[in-house]
Amino acid sequence: MRLRLTPRDATFFDLFAGQAQYLVTGADLLAQIVGADPEERPTIAGRLRDAEHDADEATHTIMRRLNQTFVTPFDRDDIYELASSLDDCMDEMEEAGDLIVLYQLGDLPKQVVRQVGVLQRCAELTALAMPRLRSMQDLSDYWVEVNRLENEADRAYRKLLAGIYEGKTPAGTDPLAIMKLKEVIDVLESAADAFEKVANTVETIALKEA
Amino acid sequence: MRLRLTPRDATFFDLFAGQAQYLVTGADLLAQIVGADPEERPTIAGRLRDAEHDADEATHTIMRRLNQTFVTPFDRDDIYELASSLDDCMDEMEEAGDLIVLYQLGDLPKQVVRQVGVLQRCAELTALAMPRLRSMQDLSDYWVEVNRLENEADRAYRKLLAGIYEGKTPAGTDPLAIMKLKEVIDVLESAADAFEKVANTVETIALKEA
Amino acid sequence: MRLRLTPRDATFFDLFAGQAQYLVTGADLLAQIVGADPEERPTIAGRLRDAEHDADEATHTIMRRLNQTFVTPFDRDDIYELASSLDDCMDEMEEAGDLIVLYQLGDLPKQVVRQVGVLQRCAELTALAMPRLRSMQDLSDYWVEVNRLENEADRAYRKLLAGIYEGKTPAGTDPLAIMKLKEVIDVLESAADAFEKVANTVETIALKEA
Repeated sequence: MRLRLTPRDATFFDLFAGQAQYLVTGADLLAQIVGADPEERPTIAGRLRDAEHDADEATHTIMRRLNQTFVTPFDRDDIYELASSLDDCMDEMEEAGDLIVLYQLGDLPKQVVRQVGVLQRCAELTALAMPRLRSMQDLSDYWVEVNRLENEADRAYRKLLAGIYEGKTPAGTDPLAIMKLKEVIDVLESAADAFEKVANTVETIALKEA
Repeated sequence: MRLRLTPRDATFFDLFAGQAQYLVTGADLLAQIVGADPEERPTIAGRLRDAEHDADEATHTIMRRLNQTFVTPFDRDDIYELASSLDDCMDEMEEAGDLIVLYQLGDLPKQVVRQVGVLQRCAELTALAMPRLRSMQDLSDYWVEVNRLENEADRAYRKLLAGIYEGKTPAGTDPLAIMKLKEVIDVLESAADAFEKVANTVETIALKEA
Repeated sequence: MRLRLTPRDATFFDLFAGQAQYLVTGADLLAQIVGADPEERPTIAGRLRDAEHDADEATHTIMRRLNQTFVTPFDRDDIYELASSLDDCMDEMEEAGDLIVLYQLGDLPKQVVRQVGVLQRCAELTALAMPRLRSMQDLSDYWVEVNRLENEADRAYRKLLAGIYEGKTPAGTDPLAIMKLKEVIDVLESAADAFEKVANTVETIALKEA
């Protein structure tokens, strides 16, 4: 039950909205990488890396401000948690794009396309939710939907796992090809988990302020 | 040095005890999966999934109450940490059971049986310790023993690692079979780590209150 | 804005300096393991394990003192975070050394030597920085340099990843040999991440106190 000595610092909301906007860009670029011909992928992955650098800058700006601000719009720990978990989403997406290029993967299984589609939807919902932190209104639809999407991603991921060792993916039964593909789908699954973490943090913040 | 304005909220203790009880159920179901014939495993894994859902509900109940309670029996952060780490134990055990079914593993090496035995013992000790959080008495035996068990699990795990690539497990020298088994034993090792994390959190709480 | 009722407790600085000194020892022993003939490695790995045990003790000492001290030289959470992240560095290095022995790896690729060289440099910089926490002076060079080193480690790691599945390492194209080497380089990469985490925690502390 913190006292609010000065008007709430509004700019944290703008900063979170900006951070989430990079996630929309990042997820879209990742979808482009997955859909592109292998020779076009390095260029798009370069743009994803740039987006990740920009998002990193945005995270640092939030952290610096947090460390230098006395009165914050909600719990310091929650601000830190929210900024960190938004940053994690971007890191995982960038790593997935980078591995696809690094491992020179060819065609990707359609469940990978589905995994990335879920990430795009999560990024859009997150970007729409951030500005609503100001009023704390209408946030529950957001976290319920992201949790539902994460469950969907989880089912797609487990189906992939079951199939990948059976030679039911473009990686066939070649152990090295399977290892590389497995690493990519694991990182995509971590990205979905990271979006769920963001939604859980927002739920925590909203419940405290209710 | 928090002031205690009202009697300590007793129900957190009951909630933690309930959460730990699910871990006993979960570890026992996991042991059944490991011991069962492959065709019987999916049914038992379904019951493990149900237990995990129930435990998830219990965790959410604690988090909701935490966010809406002003005076808590011990540090808010520690309550959060304890509930999260109990939840992690269940998640890892459920994932292990699920992977065993998903990968249609046959016979499992006896060290896997030992890993799961350690998890059962950890779950029982944790369930016995939770009610003692109320008085903060007789908790040190618990965390010392869980740390000892985790070291035992770690040794079993490292022996398995040394053997798995030498073809000394039922997976033989087939790279794909080894990858699948490796994933299961890694998750079991993470489950043991999660139980140790719970014990460390309890130690922290007890030291603060001492 | 904590009140400082008594003189700042100086001993936390000494404890952190001690913890960091173990990291220097640990990184040097890891470099010896990597450079040694396979038959000499188990002995050196034993000494690394001893250093890890000592570091573990040092961490526990800090945690105990933290739980029993009312006035701390900086935020309790940051002390916890710093001690934990220093501990993580040691755990990762010890695990890397242990896996090299356990998997009976022969010659290691020169990028692994480079990865370990970066860890040695990070450990030295960390040990030099810890005593400066007292005055909070001249710390920025430290965290900037560790971040730069982590980026260098990351590039070496990604190059290794690209090459490892192409048969461009001493593991050749044998899937089992690749899996083992991959596990070692992943743990080394986690160790570099852990050092970066320490530097980020120090940056947070310095900014708050500025």
